[in-house]
Amino acid sequence: MIENIQIEPLKSGKFIKPVHIKYRHDGKDLSWEAVKAHDSVAVLLYHREYESFLLVKQFRPPVYLNNSDGYTYELCAGIVDKPLSLKEIAKEEILEECGYDVSLDSIEKITTFYTSVGFAGSKQTLYFTEVDESMHTEDGGGIGVEKIEVVKLPLKEAKDFIYNESYAKTPGLMFAFMWFFSKNKI
Amino acid sequence: MIENIQIEPLKSGKFIKPVHIKYRHDGKDLSWEAVKAHDSVAVLLYHREYESFLLVKQFRPPVYLNNSDGYTYELCAGIVDKPLSLKEIAKEEILEECGYDVSLDSIEKITTFYTSVGFAGSKQTLYFTEVDESMHTEDGGGIGVEKIEVVKLPLKEAKDFIYNESYAKTPGLMFAFMWFFSKNKI
Repeated sequence: MIENIQIEPLKSGKFIKPVHIKYRHDGKDLSWEAVKAHDSVAVLLYHREYESFLLVKQFRPPVYLNNSDGYTYELCAGIVDKPLSLKEIAKEEILEECGYDVSLDSIEKITTFYTSVGFAGSKQTLYFTEVDESMHTEDGGGIGVEKIEVVKLPLKEAKDFIYNESYAKTPGLMFAFMWFFSKNKI
Repeated sequence: MIENIQIEPLKSGKFIKPVHIKYRHDGKDLSWEAVKAHDSVAVLLYHREYESFLLVKQFRPPVYLNNSDGYTYELCAGIVDKPLSLKEIAKEEILEECGYDVSLDSIEKITTFYTSVGFAGSKQTLYFTEVDESMHTEDGGGIGVEKIEVVKLPLKEAKDFIYNESYAKTPGLMFAFMWFFSKNKI
């Protein structure tokens, strides 16, 4: 249950660093407001035995401000804030958020793109891997105050899910599903 | 040509409003840093005679900070900051950015999703429309200081384009392409 939401101007952010970018473009002086944000990794997880994608459902305060619900359905994901390779960070997030211990070799890169190009422009690298119950070694659910619920979405419901707006989701997840359908001719 | 880039902390933003969200979740007091960002519309434009998608290439300062190039390939898009319907804003952006005058009726909604759910959570509504040269009534290129180049991407090159990381692009564009391929069984 979410209660007692209060919104105040941010004085000095630990995670959000607003910046003013000044530059000269073809001889003209211009400026732009932006936010420095971390790069990230995201992983499309397919569970072979359940014939389902594994998604993480979580409460996102910024989404709450826009739709008064705030729960999103996302790919397993994490920010790049430690000296590990992107694939190693992906492997850690799969264990922390979803509880599956996968080998680095089994994690396949799909591609890299940019998000929020208007004001953040951070890079997200998208991966894919398959899991089964033999790899389920932890509870998942995230670390610290993260309250992540792992949701199984049956493959045969995934196409309808993409266009069902009652589930708040990201375009990265929607692209990842389409990549899987296309690759497997579904 | 981009010269003389300077980055300073943002004192008081006109567009970027950092906020501190405090809330109680299942009895626990939590807080989150976020940015209030405008909702937006984006349009996948298919040019029948050229058998090409029309994209907008532009310089994005936040992307420049991450890849030292800063040019992105995006769907025609705009923020929701005026008292018009989303479809009317989409129609205006198609004219301003790309120079094509399309009828409201021809603009088809694909779906709505959330972007930057970790720190902004704004909503983007995705549309599709087809154009031909008879609708090309303006130069395009954006208004004011916008320096937008309209790029034709032949349909037969679009699949390779999605996975070519030398073109900085968004997951919304990548999903829109996949939607088109799927709909047309390409």
